Amino acid sequence: MAALRTGPSLYALPSRIYAGQRRNITIKQLEAAKNDRERVVVLGSGWAGYNLARSLNPKKFQTVVVSPRSYFVFTPLLASTSVGTLEFRTALEPVRSHRSKYEYIQGRADAVDFGKKEIMVRETVRDPNQGLLNTRAGEVRDERPLEMRIEASRGELFPLSYDKLVIGVGSYSQTFGIPGVKENAFFLKDVQDARKIRNKLLSSFETAALPTTPVALKKQLLNFAIVGGGPTGIEFSGELRDIVREDLARLYPHLIEHVQITVYDVADKILPMFEAKLGEYAMQHIGHEGVQIKTKHHIKELRRGFPQVDGQGDLNHDVKASGFTLSLQNGETSEVGCGFVVWSTGLMSNPFVEKALSPSFTAPASSVRLLENINASPTSSADWRIQKHARTGSVITDDFLRVQLDPGDHHDDKPAAVLRDVFALGDCAIVDGTQYPATAQVASQKAKWLAKKLNKGTTDIRPFSFASQGVMAYIGRWNAIVQMNQGSLSGRAAWIMWRGAYLTKSISWRNRILIPVYWMINATFGRDISRF
Amino acid sequence: MAALRTGPSLYALPSRIYAGQRRNITIKQLEAAKNDRERVVVLGSGWAGYNLARSLNPKKFQTVVVSPRSYFVFTPLLASTSVGTLEFRTALEPVRSHRSKYEYIQGRADAVDFGKKEIMVRETVRDPNQGLLNTRAGEVRDERPLEMRIEASRGELFPLSYDKLVIGVGSYSQTFGIPGVKENAFFLKDVQDARKIRNKLLSSFETAALPTTPVALKKQLLNFAIVGGGPTGIEFSGELRDIVREDLARLYPHLIEHVQITVYDVADKILPMFEAKLGEYAMQHIGHEGVQIKTKHHIKELRRGFPQVDGQGDLNHDVKASGFTLSLQNGETSEVGCGFVVWSTGLMSNPFVEKALSPSFTAPASSVRLLENINASPTSSADWRIQKHARTGSVITDDFLRVQLDPGDHHDDKPAAVLRDVFALGDCAIVDGTQYPATAQVASQKAKWLAKKLNKGTTDIRPFSFASQGVMAYIGRWNAIVQMNQGSLSGRAAWIMWRGAYLTKSISWRNRILIPVYWMINATFGRDISRF
Repeated sequence: MAALRTGPSLYALPSRIYAGQRRNITIKQLEAAKNDRERVVVLGSGWAGYNLARSLNPKKFQTVVVSPRSYFVFTPLLASTSVGTLEFRTALEPVRSHRSKYEYIQGRADAVDFGKKEIMVRETVRDPNQGLLNTRAGEVRDERPLEMRIEASRGELFPLSYDKLVIGVGSYSQTFGIPGVKENAFFLKDVQDARKIRNKLLSSFETAALPTTPVALKKQLLNFAIVGGGPTGIEFSGELRDIVREDLARLYPHLIEHVQITVYDVADKILPMFEAKLGEYAMQHIGHEGVQIKTKHHIKELRRGFPQVDGQGDLNHDVKASGFTLSLQNGETSEVGCGFVVWSTGLMSNPFVEKALSPSFTAPASSVRLLENINASPTSSADWRIQKHARTGSVITDDFLRVQLDPGDHHDDKPAAVLRDVFALGDCAIVDGTQYPATAQVASQKAKWLAKKLNKGTTDIRPFSFASQGVMAYIGRWNAIVQMNQGSLSGRAAWIMWRGAYLTKSISWRNRILIPVYWMINATFGRDISRF
Repeated sequence: MAALRTGPSLYALPSRIYAGQRRNITIKQLEAAKNDRERVVVLGSGWAGYNLARSLNPKKFQTVVVSPRSYFVFTPLLASTSVGTLEFRTALEPVRSHRSKYEYIQGRADAVDFGKKEIMVRETVRDPNQGLLNTRAGEVRDERPLEMRIEASRGELFPLSYDKLVIGVGSYSQTFGIPGVKENAFFLKDVQDARKIRNKLLSSFETAALPTTPVALKKQLLNFAIVGGGPTGIEFSGELRDIVREDLARLYPHLIEHVQITVYDVADKILPMFEAKLGEYAMQHIGHEGVQIKTKHHIKELRRGFPQVDGQGDLNHDVKASGFTLSLQNGETSEVGCGFVVWSTGLMSNPFVEKALSPSFTAPASSVRLLENINASPTSSADWRIQKHARTGSVITDDFLRVQLDPGDHHDDKPAAVLRDVFALGDCAIVDGTQYPATAQVASQKAKWLAKKLNKGTTDIRPFSFASQGVMAYIGRWNAIVQMNQGSLSGRAAWIMWRGAYLTKSISWRNRILIPVYWMINATFGRDISRF
C-alpha cells in the first residue's frame, strides 16, 4: 500500500461541532433525544411549515420537519428568478441550516393514524419529483439531472410518532382538467419551474436565431402566453417584458419584431384583488409596454408541437416539437403556436389532503375534542369525516387552526368536533367561515400565531385572525402597484416599495446581501443568458 | 375580441438597439453583412476560441463563432462551483454579450471541405448533450432538464463558408478505455459536471441521514474517490474537504465520522508539474487535512451500484443503485463502494478532430502551402494527411499555429506542407516539437498571438512561443502552492495569490464583483446546500 496518512482523519473535528443540535439520526436516536419534550411533526417546508418550525421553542418541543423539498421557496421572487433578474438560489433557504433547532427528514407523509398519533413517512431524497405525486407529474417529472432520475425510487417507508401534528403541505396548481395543461404548461410554484422557464425562453431565442429557422416559425417560437391575470401571471409578464426589452432586444435585434407576449384570462378583468383604479393603471401600463391582455378567453387545450403554418417550410420534426399549440375560445375557437405557456390560475387540493386525509375514518374518543365543550372528548370511538372546502378541497379548520370534523355517514346526531393535537395551515387549509386568500401572508401569520400559542401552551384562547398588510404586484419596467390599508400607490415609488418589502422580508442575511447585489449587477451589466 | 392594445408594441425599440451588431441572421444576411471583410469561422468557445473571437478586429473580419456551448467556462473555478464555494454562473461568460462584435451559431462542425473552404454546421440548440458526440455520452447525457431532452434532435445541417478557419474544439476526458468510467465517473470539464457533483454530494449526505439507512451503507455513501493527482483532482479534493469540514460537519454532525475522501493515482507521486518541495508540501498538507492519497493504484473498473457489505441489511434496490463500486489494483485487487468518483486523468482527442479531420483527404493545390517555400502551393491537387500527435491524437501545427500536413499514403516524395488559412489551437492542437501543456494558459496565449497576427495581417513572421506564467493549485483549507519563474510559495500567502490571480483573470466585471461577494458570503454564512 502506498497510502499516505500523515495527519488526523476528517472526522477529528472540533468538539463544538458535535455539541450542536443532532440533525441526522435514526428513529431510535430521535426517541432518545426527545427527553421530556413533546414532538411536533411539521409536514411541509413552505411559508407555513418553515416559519412554524423556526419559531417553535426547542426547549419545549422536539420539532421534526418532514418535507420532500430540502428548501423553502420565497415565492414572491420566483418570477424574477425565472428570467434571471435574480439568481434561483436567492429565492431559496435550505431547510437545514447551521442555526436551525429542528430535525429534518426529506420525505412525505403517505398516511396518518390519528388514533396511534403516527404518520408513515416515505423518504424522497432521490425522488426526481421531490415527492410530488402523480397529479402533478407532467409538470416537474424528469426536470432534474439524470443523477437524480436514475436514483429515483419508491423510497423506504417508516413510521414516525407525534405528539402534535401540523399539516402545511400546500396545494397544487389548478388546471381545471383542461387537456394537456398538466403535461405541457409551465407553472410558477417551485424553483424548478423557474429554471425550466428560463432555459426554455433562452433556447427559444437561440433556435429562432438559427439561419435554418423560417420566419413563420420564429414568430411561433417567440410567442409567449401567460394564462391567468392574477398577481403571479402579471408579475411574470412584467419580468418577461423586462428581459425581452432590456436584454434580448440587444442580443438578438433582428428577432425582436417577432416577439409577442400575451396574458389570457377567462374573467373580464385582471388583478381582481386590487381596487379598480389600480387594476386599470396596471392594464394601461402593461398594454403600453407591449404586452397584450386578452380577457374573456377560455383555454380549450394545450398540446405539444407547433401548429402548421404557411411559410414554415419543411421543418425538422424536432424543431416543430419544441413548441406548443394553445387552443383558445373567445366567441370562436382559434389556435396559436407558442414557445411556452405559463399557467397561473389558482390552486387545487394537494393529493395528501385528498387521499391521506381520507373522507371517513374511525377515531378513538381520545383523539377528538367536542366543539361544544372543547376539553371534552366523545364517550367512544366513532366514525368521523375531515371537513373540506367544497370548491378547493382545502381542510377546514376552526379559528384555532384545529382540523374540523363532521360526523361520519349515518351519524348525523353527533356534535361538531375537532381533531386533538392536529393543526392545518397554509394553502392546504382554510379557517371556517373566512375568505382568507391562499397567500404567503396568511400562511406566515398563521404559522407565527400557532408557534406563539404552542410555545405558551395556551392554544385555546384568542383565536387567529388575519390582518392584511396589503397587496402588491410588479407590472414591468420598474413599475408596480401597491394597495394597503393606509392607501394605494402606483408607479416607480410603488416599485421601490415592492423591492424594499421583499428585501426586508427575505429570511437570511445571505439573501439580503445577494438580492441587492444581483439587482445592481443585472441593472448594470444585463441579465446572464448562459443556458446549462 | 377583448384584446387591449393601448400602446406601442414590444418591437418599437429605440433605434440605437438596431444600430448595433447583427447577431442573429440567416446565411443570406450573413453574406450581406460581410461587406469586404474576410470571414473567420471559429470552432469552439473555450479558452482558445472565445479569446480569439473577442480579440479579432471587427472592421477587418466578420467573425462567426460556431460552438455547441452557449457560454465560455472559466475552468480554474469549476472545482469551486462543484461544492458551492462559488455559484455556477460565476465561472461562465455567455458567448453572446451586449458588447461582442462577432456572430454566434449554436452548433458544431460535422465536416470540413478545405478545398471549397466550407464547413457543415449541425445546429445543437436543443441538443441535451450540448453537441458533444457519443464518445462522451455517458458523462453528460440527460443531465439537462426534460425540456431540453424532449427537444433533443439531430439538428438541421447547413453549410457555412470561411476565408479563415480556426479550430479550437478542445478535448475530451481520457478514460483509457477502463470499463464503466465513461458511463459512471463524474468529470470536471463543464459546468454541468460541476452541477452533477454538487447535487450528488448533497444527496449522498441526505440519504445517509435518513433513519432507514444502515451504518455500513452510510460509510459507502460518504466515501468519495478522486482519480488523478493532477491540479484538477487535487483542487477538487481540497474543495471537497472544505465543504465537508466547514459546512456538512455542522449540518450532519453524526455522519461526519463516516466520511472518507481518497485521491488515487497510478504514478508514485501527485502534482508532477510542481517542483519536489511543493509537491511534498501539498502531500503533507492534504494528508494532515484528512484526505488520503493513494499512489500506485490502478483502476480496473467503475460500475454503478454499491458492493454487498455485511451489516448493510436488506436494502431497497434503488438505494443500493445510488452509489458506485470502484475496482482497484495495487498488488492485489480490491473493491470499494463510493458515493461518487471524480475522474481527472488527462485528455483525449475530440471526435471532431478524430473523425471530421479525417486522416487522408484530397486537397486542391490552392489550399496547401509548402513549408519549404511558404508562399508557394503544390503544382496540383494531391492526397494529404493531417498530422496528429501519436499519443494524444492532437492536431500538430507549426509554430505559426498552421495545421501541418503529411504526404498521403504512397506519396512519400511530397514535401512537408501546411493547410492554407486553417489554424488550430487550444487543447486539440500542439505545436510541432514542443511539450506545451494542454492548459488554459497555453490556449489563451495562442489565441492572443493569433488574433494579433491576423489583425496585423502578418501571420508569417515571429512564431508563437509559450511563456509560462507559472503553475498553482489550491490544496484545501485556505492553502495553495504556487510555482513561478521568480520562485515558489506555499501556504496562506499562496492561497491569497491563487484567489487574486483568478479574480484578476476573470473576464467580465459582473464576475469580478460576484466572485468576491460569494467568497465573502460563503465564508461568513456557509455554503448553500439547497438541492434542485
